[in-house]
Amino acid sequence: MAVAVYPGSFDPITRGHYDIIERTAKIMDHLVVAVLRNSSKTPLFTVEERMAMVEELVGGFPNVVVETFDGLLIDFVRSKEASVIVRGLRAVTDFEYELQMAQTNRVMAPEIDTLFLTTNLKYSYLSSNIVKEIALYDGDVSPFVHPQVAERVKAKLLQK
Amino acid sequence: MAVAVYPGSFDPITRGHYDIIERTAKIMDHLVVAVLRNSSKTPLFTVEERMAMVEELVGGFPNVVVETFDGLLIDFVRSKEASVIVRGLRAVTDFEYELQMAQTNRVMAPEIDTLFLTTNLKYSYLSSNIVKEIALYDGDVSPFVHPQVAERVKAKLLQK
Amino acid sequence: MAVAVYPGSFDPITRGHYDIIERTAKIMDHLVVAVLRNSSKTPLFTVEERMAMVEELVGGFPNVVVETFDGLLIDFVRSKEASVIVRGLRAVTDFEYELQMAQTNRVMAPEIDTLFLTTNLKYSYLSSNIVKEIALYDGDVSPFVHPQVAERVKAKLLQK
Amino acid sequence: MAVAVYPGSFDPITRGHYDIIERTAKIMDHLVVAVLRNSSKTPLFTVEERMAMVEELVGGFPNVVVETFDGLLIDFVRSKEASVIVRGLRAVTDFEYELQMAQTNRVMAPEIDTLFLTTNLKYSYLSSNIVKEIALYDGDVSPFVHPQVAERVKAKLLQK
Amino acid sequence: MAVAVYPGSFDPITRGHYDIIERTAKIMDHLVVAVLRNSSKTPLFTVEERMAMVEELVGGFPNVVVETFDGLLIDFVRSKEASVIVRGLRAVTDFEYELQMAQTNRVMAPEIDTLFLTTNLKYSYLSSNIVKEIALYDGDVSPFVHPQVAERVKAKLLQK
Amino acid sequence: MAVAVYPGSFDPITRGHYDIIERTAKIMDHLVVAVLRNSSKTPLFTVEERMAMVEELVGGFPNVVVETFDGLLIDFVRSKEASVIVRGLRAVTDFEYELQMAQTNRVMAPEIDTLFLTTNLKYSYLSSNIVKEIALYDGDVSPFVHPQVAERVKAKLLQK
Repeated sequence: MAVAVYPGSFDPITRGHYDIIERTAKIMDHLVVAVLRNSSKTPLFTVEERMAMVEELVGGFPNVVVETFDGLLIDFVRSKEASVIVRGLRAVTDFEYELQMAQTNRVMAPEIDTLFLTTNLKYSYLSSNIVKEIALYDGDVSPFVHPQVAERVKAKLLQK
Repeated sequence: MAVAVYPGSFDPITRGHYDIIERTAKIMDHLVVAVLRNSSKTPLFTVEERMAMVEELVGGFPNVVVETFDGLLIDFVRSKEASVIVRGLRAVTDFEYELQMAQTNRVMAPEIDTLFLTTNLKYSYLSSNIVKEIALYDGDVSPFVHPQVAERVKAKLLQK
Repeated sequence: MAVAVYPGSFDPITRGHYDIIERTAKIMDHLVVAVLRNSSKTPLFTVEERMAMVEELVGGFPNVVVETFDGLLIDFVRSKEASVIVRGLRAVTDFEYELQMAQTNRVMAPEIDTLFLTTNLKYSYLSSNIVKEIALYDGDVSPFVHPQVAERVKAKLLQK
Repeated sequence: MAVAVYPGSFDPITRGHYDIIERTAKIMDHLVVAVLRNSSKTPLFTVEERMAMVEELVGGFPNVVVETFDGLLIDFVRSKEASVIVRGLRAVTDFEYELQMAQTNRVMAPEIDTLFLTTNLKYSYLSSNIVKEIALYDGDVSPFVHPQVAERVKAKLLQK
Repeated sequence: MAVAVYPGSFDPITRGHYDIIERTAKIMDHLVVAVLRNSSKTPLFTVEERMAMVEELVGGFPNVVVETFDGLLIDFVRSKEASVIVRGLRAVTDFEYELQMAQTNRVMAPEIDTLFLTTNLKYSYLSSNIVKEIALYDGDVSPFVHPQVAERVKAKLLQK
Repeated sequence: MAVAVYPGSFDPITRGHYDIIERTAKIMDHLVVAVLRNSSKTPLFTVEERMAMVEELVGGFPNVVVETFDGLLIDFVRSKEASVIVRGLRAVTDFEYELQMAQTNRVMAPEIDTLFLTTNLKYSYLSSNIVKEIALYDGDVSPFVHPQVAERVKAKLLQK
């Protein structure tokens, strides 16, 4: 049974992330969406808030669970007895960084492989950072995130 | 059950191709290696010879079969009731072309997805063309292809 | 008055080409769509057929004309008393080639500049070659070209 | 009448920026050079100083004005009743980022388009950051910025 | 006599850096490994520690010396009466940045040239940052650095 | 003594090639410019004509010789007892291809290394093909090749 892990900060989950999760859930037997606890950058949302938003959107998928992780990704993948890391690919700069991580992980954990899906064209230049930047200046983020997420981003920025 | 198709010319199969097949066979339930019959470029080997070389190397894998195809890849994938196309990624130029094909195929067949694996570093700059060019000038191709394939390349070039 | 030239083979005109013409026509005072007569590759359509397809689609735009050209692009641009070359950018490989041409043209004709528009995401991986390849295998090209063009491609391939 | 906006930090304006302004002013009816007030990075010069340097160099162009902006670029572009954003392209890394911004802006404001000019070869690897780094170590920045700007950079670094 | 300078932070020296030094020492008459004193980022090791690690590994090479530098690289290169800067190239993102530096340095010091060696495939996606990140989470860094360096990284992180 | 080989088709030698030769001759003890006899593409000039043009331009350099070669580059490099291959780098597409060749050559001949120089900015988008294309349409090629070469290109095209 092929278990896959889809790691990320999901700060917040975008329509691009959702698209990758939905497609991977069709291909893999089981998918763990792994929300990174301590990112080096200060996230806008706490890890609990980020998990809640992901779960709200993908909780209905029968073969998807949402968890948090910390430390080395390959240690988390091994703890889940997973054999596959899933990543979305957007553009060339992404590609280089993703390749670097995939090759490093392979040297450290040869039994784990990395699969890449290309981001849907509609979301191909989308990132969580752009969503936050647009929301900060009161722009409309509904083309980029689901309505529930848009609400939370707006509410969070009002608190600040 | 996730069925995947790995298409290519395999003229001839390299250690890089073999690596992708071996890794995909671990992740997917079933894998069809699809040898392209009519490539636009004139191949060195006939499609039967190319299939025979692939089968000799991967015939022992219980969930891998080798077939030929012609026409649009998505038509072949549908005829196999497969949902996934697998491709190896080497470098930036590859990446652009592969993305173009993946996006075009998605527009034409939204139910089929393309998965990318990164080539093993050892084979990351390897191609069938380089193998043939080296063999043409009597260079040693054993780092790039299996011994059986090296033999056949040598024999084929002597006929010419 | 800023006159721009949009050169290409248009073999055939795609929805991506159309998008660039439509957007450029809004920005520039006058636009000349310049159909390259003698491409190094053998085109599927004659230059007259390619012009006819472009004219059918963009003939209604008041500030756009369709012409053919041969020889150096900068000589044609000068003959039109234009000061701008317009090109669509799709991806990295494109970008390098387009930059090379833009820089070469600037050395030869410093008074002419090249403007780039990024291709609409929906058409970002589209090319005339892909359209022809799909049509050759009886695939549906309607997402990529206008219906009139799709008809002509089908008819042309039947003649062969 | 085509009005264009050329946004940037201009901290300080380089010969590369000047080249883009000069060329755009020939193509567009009206050009607004838009100096970003609050960059996420701490600028070396205040927005007033950056504006003054730009104005000193391009103030003589009859169809160019210099303004500041804050918030979303597309909101500023709309407030100017402009329809075009102009950006200079240097290299591949640039290209990816610029494409991302252009596509995001198009989703948010379909009536606004982004035009790219390729940087003059002589300035193709130049950035404000490099100018500041060289000046910091007492290097000669005159190949990269106009003499007035070089003076101000030197004076500013002495204050620190 | 061709004297070359290989500059870097070496925080710490990786097997990839070692590979570049070993190969350059065979080609150039004399090589100065130049450890950057004040990096903009806070280094893990002091410049003395970084120099000591480099010297421990390459001190036995008869034509290699290890020094520190500060300020503009071209000033250091001139002070050594060297004519060549050596850099390792890993991937596309590297390449763009390296090209930018090489071109800027050529404008400022036309008598100094930059030579690039491609990183050995085995180390092609390796960086000092990845080594530190892996060590931070108790991962095994021995594939990426020499044993002496691995010891020091471990000890240093325990102090923190 | 470091002997380097600079291989190419030189059909014809451009100002960009000349720049690489001139700079390499300063760094290496001895340089062999190696003109490829049988290119897969049909060259405009015979190998004798291409050699003559190179020799006319660089014959005066005391440590440079011009030769022809055929077959595998590494066999030629070994026959010259050289240890270094020199290549000019222009842009990203170049870079990928050059890396592929360098890595393949390293696997086949670990004792031979490849050094890259970045092309002078002025010639950074220049190629022999562009020169020939421009000359074919009676364009002025003097910015791209030396006057003697321009003469020969013109004369050669008149013969056709």
